[in-house]
Amino acid sequence: MTPIMSKSEAARHVASARVRRGLSWARIAAEIDAPLVWTTAALLGQHPMTREQAERVCDFLDLDAAVAESLQLQPTRGADPAVLSDPTIYRFAEALSVYGPALKELVHDEFGDGIMSAINFRVDFARRPDPDGDRVVITFDGKFLDYRW
Amino acid sequence: MTPIMSKSEAARHVASARVRRGLSWARIAAEIDAPLVWTTAALLGQHPMTREQAERVCDFLDLDAAVAESLQLQPTRGADPAVLSDPTIYRFAEALSVYGPALKELVHDEFGDGIMSAINFRVDFARRPDPDGDRVVITFDGKFLDYRW
Amino acid sequence: MTPIMSKSEAARHVASARVRRGLSWARIAAEIDAPLVWTTAALLGQHPMTREQAERVCDFLDLDAAVAESLQLQPTRGADPAVLSDPTIYRFAEALSVYGPALKELVHDEFGDGIMSAINFRVDFARRPDPDGDRVVITFDGKFLDYRW
Amino acid sequence: MTPIMSKSEAARHVASARVRRGLSWARIAAEIDAPLVWTTAALLGQHPMTREQAERVCDFLDLDAAVAESLQLQPTRGADPAVLSDPTIYRFAEALSVYGPALKELVHDEFGDGIMSAINFRVDFARRPDPDGDRVVITFDGKFLDYRW
Amino acid sequence: MTPIMSKSEAARHVASARVRRGLSWARIAAEIDAPLVWTTAALLGQHPMTREQAERVCDFLDLDAAVAESLQLQPTRGADPAVLSDPTIYRFAEALSVYGPALKELVHDEFGDGIMSAINFRVDFARRPDPDGDRVVITFDGKFLDYRW
Amino acid sequence: MTPIMSKSEAARHVASARVRRGLSWARIAAEIDAPLVWTTAALLGQHPMTREQAERVCDFLDLDAAVAESLQLQPTRGADPAVLSDPTIYRFAEALSVYGPALKELVHDEFGDGIMSAINFRVDFARRPDPDGDRVVITFDGKFLDYRW
Amino acid sequence: MTPIMSKSEAARHVASARVRRGLSWARIAAEIDAPLVWTTAALLGQHPMTREQAERVCDFLDLDAAVAESLQLQPTRGADPAVLSDPTIYRFAEALSVYGPALKELVHDEFGDGIMSAINFRVDFARRPDPDGDRVVITFDGKFLDYRW
Amino acid sequence: MTPIMSKSEAARHVASARVRRGLSWARIAAEIDAPLVWTTAALLGQHPMTREQAERVCDFLDLDAAVAESLQLQPTRGADPAVLSDPTIYRFAEALSVYGPALKELVHDEFGDGIMSAINFRVDFARRPDPDGDRVVITFDGKFLDYRW
Amino acid sequence: MTPIMSKSEAARHVASARVRRGLSWARIAAEIDAPLVWTTAALLGQHPMTREQAERVCDFLDLDAAVAESLQLQPTRGADPAVLSDPTIYRFAEALSVYGPALKELVHDEFGDGIMSAINFRVDFARRPDPDGDRVVITFDGKFLDYRW
Amino acid sequence: MTPIMSKSEAARHVASARVRRGLSWARIAAEIDAPLVWTTAALLGQHPMTREQAERVCDFLDLDAAVAESLQLQPTRGADPAVLSDPTIYRFAEALSVYGPALKELVHDEFGDGIMSAINFRVDFARRPDPDGDRVVITFDGKFLDYRW
Repeated sequence: MTPIMSKSEAARHVASARVRRGLSWARIAAEIDAPLVWTTAALLGQHPMTREQAERVCDFLDLDAAVAESLQLQPTRGADPAVLSDPTIYRFAEALSVYGPALKELVHDEFGDGIMSAINFRVDFARRPDPDGDRVVITFDGKFLDYRW
Repeated sequence: MTPIMSKSEAARHVASARVRRGLSWARIAAEIDAPLVWTTAALLGQHPMTREQAERVCDFLDLDAAVAESLQLQPTRGADPAVLSDPTIYRFAEALSVYGPALKELVHDEFGDGIMSAINFRVDFARRPDPDGDRVVITFDGKFLDYRW
Repeated sequence: MTPIMSKSEAARHVASARVRRGLSWARIAAEIDAPLVWTTAALLGQHPMTREQAERVCDFLDLDAAVAESLQLQPTRGADPAVLSDPTIYRFAEALSVYGPALKELVHDEFGDGIMSAINFRVDFARRPDPDGDRVVITFDGKFLDYRW
Repeated sequence: MTPIMSKSEAARHVASARVRRGLSWARIAAEIDAPLVWTTAALLGQHPMTREQAERVCDFLDLDAAVAESLQLQPTRGADPAVLSDPTIYRFAEALSVYGPALKELVHDEFGDGIMSAINFRVDFARRPDPDGDRVVITFDGKFLDYRW
Repeated sequence: MTPIMSKSEAARHVASARVRRGLSWARIAAEIDAPLVWTTAALLGQHPMTREQAERVCDFLDLDAAVAESLQLQPTRGADPAVLSDPTIYRFAEALSVYGPALKELVHDEFGDGIMSAINFRVDFARRPDPDGDRVVITFDGKFLDYRW
Repeated sequence: MTPIMSKSEAARHVASARVRRGLSWARIAAEIDAPLVWTTAALLGQHPMTREQAERVCDFLDLDAAVAESLQLQPTRGADPAVLSDPTIYRFAEALSVYGPALKELVHDEFGDGIMSAINFRVDFARRPDPDGDRVVITFDGKFLDYRW
Repeated sequence: MTPIMSKSEAARHVASARVRRGLSWARIAAEIDAPLVWTTAALLGQHPMTREQAERVCDFLDLDAAVAESLQLQPTRGADPAVLSDPTIYRFAEALSVYGPALKELVHDEFGDGIMSAINFRVDFARRPDPDGDRVVITFDGKFLDYRW
Repeated sequence: MTPIMSKSEAARHVASARVRRGLSWARIAAEIDAPLVWTTAALLGQHPMTREQAERVCDFLDLDAAVAESLQLQPTRGADPAVLSDPTIYRFAEALSVYGPALKELVHDEFGDGIMSAINFRVDFARRPDPDGDRVVITFDGKFLDYRW
Repeated sequence: MTPIMSKSEAARHVASARVRRGLSWARIAAEIDAPLVWTTAALLGQHPMTREQAERVCDFLDLDAAVAESLQLQPTRGADPAVLSDPTIYRFAEALSVYGPALKELVHDEFGDGIMSAINFRVDFARRPDPDGDRVVITFDGKFLDYRW
Repeated sequence: MTPIMSKSEAARHVASARVRRGLSWARIAAEIDAPLVWTTAALLGQHPMTREQAERVCDFLDLDAAVAESLQLQPTRGADPAVLSDPTIYRFAEALSVYGPALKELVHDEFGDGIMSAINFRVDFARRPDPDGDRVVITFDGKFLDYRW
């Protein structure tokens, strides 16, 4: 009667194994042939993996079957609010505070009354070389959903 | 001894004039030849405009000089937290809650210890046609800054 | 240079006129031939009305054109959190606190990983006679959206 | 002098056994012949079960008697507020924020001064096929209680 | 197009007139032949009055018809949380913090799984002479409602 | 050097033993010849018991001496705020939010400037039969204390 | 139908008149022959004054009768929490955070289970000369109240 | 590589030993010849003790050397906010809410612009016999510090 | 009976006059021969000015005597917490979150148990040219105060 | 499959070893030839160390390799908000509340629209002898970043 390992415990095992092996997230994503941001989020506990994906990750990182079982669970999504004050994450929150109302205006101006879906949605991450210092480029790409009664 | 109009009051005048004239934000941005998201944010009070930009906007929208004076002020930036629960804005906050820790991992993996700047930074907004429903595409593009003592 | 009336001010005018004329919300919804909950929410400031709807409501309630102008504005949605502690509204919040996690389980069990849309969504309100005391019956009906990358 | 297992620990055992056996909540509810949402909520710790219900569930899922003892306890009800930001649950909270004040108006308009009970109350969950995408249909059905001194 | 006076403004007029005339709340309750706590709460904006009650109060206190109109409105109930730290009110909150869980235990022990209604409910206030100092005696009297699906 | 058991741990042992033996709180209060609400609150950790009371309770419920030692400790009083959202407890908080300011008015009207003590104070709990459904009757009875410099 | 001036508005008039006349609070307290801290608190809106006290203060400071009327009102007590972060006030809050639990221990050790009353209570303020720098000496003096059922 | 015992764990050992031996805080303070409030606060983890003080306390209470080691650590000061709602401690917070702004006025009136130090500071605790009930007398005595650039 | 202008209103007049005249804060500080950060903070309402300083500023900026009267008032200090999320100010808060515990360690290591005073304290602001981009250099310089009973 | 030790656990081991050996932070910083504030912050978990730095610290303090492994991890930065109320740390927060808006004004006045970087940033700590009492001198030195689209 041992309950399934929690997703946060599984994430801690994945993170430890990744650091000890010196692997990038991109290397792991390539191993399971899945998008980079999706894979990273899933291994941190924000998306359920298929059995095949979970087992391939655990084989690759030499982790127990208990971790693979946990990675397949349906998650309760969302970050601990305390984490949002880490400077690397906070800059996204600051950008939202400065540009959020402008983006709302532009969504309505271009599409009408509705939202950008965060479910039918993907996020891409890239590095763009720049002579003044390379840049982090993150793209949010979500289906427009109009208010429809 | 009349103090300068607050930027929120100025934003309300701009918004009213825009709606009454039936103008898009893109049309106004074109008028002052400035980027779309930047212009929208500036007119909502998040960036100072140059005197020339402010006066051209007020001419175009037939607004008083008091509005133009206010648009040039240095702002105190940030949105009212209550606004962040509007569904159109909230989806960005939700995406940050789900993907923020993953983006932090990827920034460190690709660039090392540091952040994406929210100051040397631009945001672009686009509509991408898609047979399954058009998509909102938003790009955050910020210079990487490494922790440097 | 008079800015457009805020939607909360417009809602206050609508509410006063409705009470003084002794009209039900259902009567007003019938007048503009729109769904009951939608109409009530729109007049409280949560949905934009078409010009025709706004003008018909203002004619019917003998309200100024300034109210009709305001009713057509794109809203910033969401209730003041203080209002959620009113006992009539709080019972919905309590039900969500007691049954929310169960509903999440059932959405996933029946549909897989995804959500009930709150945008492609309708709410119906009905009274059901019952010998032990009539009942309030509220139906949430939203399109299922699966997490799709 | 071993104290009774907490309801959250019991819920974790139930959830683990359910996933490992690949059973739906509907299958478990059928086993104890109880309503679907009620059963799910009870097994998550929000309602006390009768001894017979608790023992049947534990037999069915092959769980210890300690779980059955816990399932019969009187609960302290309510979800951890952090859980309410999971996207699948959050959409209900968003709907309440957008439509709550309208529903209050309609309760008063139709029934007078009072509330929908959240105690003499049931919740139903259904899937409604729809060519544009199946829909989640959730019904709140509570007795009207008028303010009565 | 003057909107109806808010209930907090009406309450302020009632309170001022009461103090200036040197009247007790009991005297006003007697005037409209209604229970003491109910009348006080209603005049502070927590219950709607009938037209007859509202007009009698305004006649008695020599207040405008605008106040009487406001007193009949359906209220949004609940006190400003800041008010709950006033020492006279805080002692009730403290008693609830110390005895609330015990009262929950006793409700369940005596009645089973359910609640004391706060809607089918009355509150009485009395002074009980006592040689060691008179006592404030407040009685909460609510119908028991059992969880009934 | 084993520290004394915490009062919350002691309360958990008392609660478990009470449920397993099928005893009411009233039966335990009778056993130690103390008031019902006081006894329940004390066993939940809100009042210190005398050595005699603590030992009698532990004899009666067959609990270890470590529990009796803990029950005699001076408590830090107050409920976990999360518990106050349990529906059975919340109705008391709601009543306080609706009637608290009215009770303050009546205390001042009848007694002058001061408070109802929550220290020289008792709470009684009773069931009152009623053909329309039995009622929960809770009486707060506290000494009036006037502001005295 | 002009309502009574609020106590915060009255306090603002008192403060302005005091500063303009260059009077100390001690001088005003002497004028009405009342304790220093009590008088200051009462004029800031935390205690009701008698008619005689209120009128003498307003005569002395040449303030309108509307101020005197307000000073006699029963207050809703308590400071705006924002004010508690002013450095001069914050040091008291800091002392409470550091020494509060110790003072609780000592109250119980010396007096038994109970509290220091904040109602039958006085506060004194003094300056004590000291060669290392004069000292602020504040004395809280409250009747002990034992928990008495 | 066993880390040093935390100060809260050390405080729990001190408190348990004190209660079991039936010793007052005054008796312990006398044993180490230190002020009463200081000693109590230090043993609760708010001040570092010297090695000699810590060892004498642990000898006297028969506690392990690990406790003495912990008592000498530099603390992170401040009480858990939840503790501040215990009624015995809360009365101090209430007094601060009622009298804090008045004390600020008096500090400025008597001393000018500055604060009472909470560092060069002592607190004394005394019982004052009184025929109407003995009184708790607490004195805050801190050096005045003027704003000095 | 016109009360004194609030310090926030005075600050708004100063800010408007400064911008309209195109003056730097350094120019104003030079005019009254006071330190730069102190002068800026005082004009924003955080320090009282002497009569001479206040009058010189108002002469220089051509502001009414009412502003000069307000600038001399004793302030209630502290910024609106909302302002702390402006990016330019937030970086200081972030530095405190990252380095605050380290600075505490170093204060204790170098000076013993105590604090850096924020009262006997000055802040300096400078620009330091740097070929990689000029730097903002801010110095906090406060007297060490040791815990002294 | 043992996960890597958390940085807070590693910090606790470092702190214990430092105290037991009687070493200053400056002595440890000298050992690894790194800046003082940086080293202290890194050992408290706010910066990643290189392998060489981590191993030298652990050799010097005789700590296990598990601590050295943890010290090299990428941190999630930020202090527990509860720690910010410790008096030694709070004075920095208070200074920020009093002077933050002034520093923002001066940054804009001297540099234009932008911020002081908290990433390309260093903090220095020094003791300055002073006949009136030695002083804590802390310097924040960050690159100016202008808003650049």
